[in-house]
Amino acid sequence: MGDTPQARRRRVPRKEREQQMIDVAVQVFAKRGYHAASVDEIAELAGISKPMVYLYLDSKEGLFLACLRREADRLVAAFQGAAREAAVRGADDGSGRGAPEVRLHAGLLAFFAFVAERRDSWVVLHRQASELSETIAAAVAEARRAVMAQVAELVRAGIEESAAAAQLTERDADFVAHALVGAADSLTDWMARNPGQSPEGVALRLMNMVWVGMGRVLEGEVWVPARG
Amino acid sequence: MGDTPQARRRRVPRKEREQQMIDVAVQVFAKRGYHAASVDEIAELAGISKPMVYLYLDSKEGLFLACLRREADRLVAAFQGAAREAAVRGADDGSGRGAPEVRLHAGLLAFFAFVAERRDSWVVLHRQASELSETIAAAVAEARRAVMAQVAELVRAGIEESAAAAQLTERDADFVAHALVGAADSLTDWMARNPGQSPEGVALRLMNMVWVGMGRVLEGEVWVPARG
Repeated sequence: MGDTPQARRRRVPRKEREQQMIDVAVQVFAKRGYHAASVDEIAELAGISKPMVYLYLDSKEGLFLACLRREADRLVAAFQGAAREAAVRGADDGSGRGAPEVRLHAGLLAFFAFVAERRDSWVVLHRQASELSETIAAAVAEARRAVMAQVAELVRAGIEESAAAAQLTERDADFVAHALVGAADSLTDWMARNPGQSPEGVALRLMNMVWVGMGRVLEGEVWVPARG
Repeated sequence: MGDTPQARRRRVPRKEREQQMIDVAVQVFAKRGYHAASVDEIAELAGISKPMVYLYLDSKEGLFLACLRREADRLVAAFQGAAREAAVRGADDGSGRGAPEVRLHAGLLAFFAFVAERRDSWVVLHRQASELSETIAAAVAEARRAVMAQVAELVRAGIEESAAAAQLTERDADFVAHALVGAADSLTDWMARNPGQSPEGVALRLMNMVWVGMGRVLEGEVWVPARG
């Protein structure tokens, strides 16, 4: 009460100020693309001086990396949190909802919901990275590895619970994880083209396509090409 | 015989000279990345003067676009050619090899073989594009749409031959195509990490994961999450 906006701004701690800056930067990078985005615009929209942006995050690249890391962490946390919550609920009431496929489904749903709700974050993570610089490419690769490891672990758990455990290796689980993560990535384009479709519907379709197939293959149903 | 290298070079027609330039450029872009690649190096390795590179392809961006378009055309042609050949063979001997899943398998195999054999082309197509410029991003998106349309058509054909035709729409086929293309994209990373694995093995695994699952779902086997 009675504070001028400026006086209020002065008392915002650095950590919080940084987060505000990143919020704005994610929007601007998503809208304009990395090269066209300007630190001037980001500073102005965040109500922060340009020198302060440089003081906090060093450079435009540093700002982009901060965006990338925060959004990647949030995405991994959303996936992991949903999968973990499904496991706990399953264990609580013995309904079987803690089974690997239930955790995988919960994780996929959290992923598609994240993409639907945080479109700007997804544009920054998905569209604008690989060639910008080696540092940025490395940060993207690391985020992808983190998600991949989560998915591979659930696939492995699923395989272990199946009858055919002996036939499948860690490499198999990694294969399925790559296929699933790639499919999920690509389906975000399908979602963008079909705005009426819910994250729930997308997650369920993908589970049906992949998990049912994997289950059948584990049970011994194998497709082979005709010999030519 | 008796020609100096320079005299021979002068008689190379423009079209052919351009292709040589693109061959070299694909290698250099794949090795160094777009920003670090220099037109000087490309001109030198191609044995062409730098002004001539600019005369033919206008700019570094023009050169990259020419690489992108040629390799994308080759990739689409490899997929399409293999799928078409499988269809023709199937029609010839009545063995059923012309069925949609056989064509899809042949196309996927051609894709993974392309990626295994033409690593540089794949790096340029897959890793170095989205954020470089709007023109380049548009060219990549167009190449991706071309592959997606091919796959969606095979999926649609597969659905039409199944008993459940009435239940599935064009949107469903497009969903499966996005999942398949995304999975295939992502599996090229798995291939890079598992160099002993053949394109044949990768194509077969993916068919088993996705096609068997889709077949089962078409037959009415549906996975649903437990109600919470």
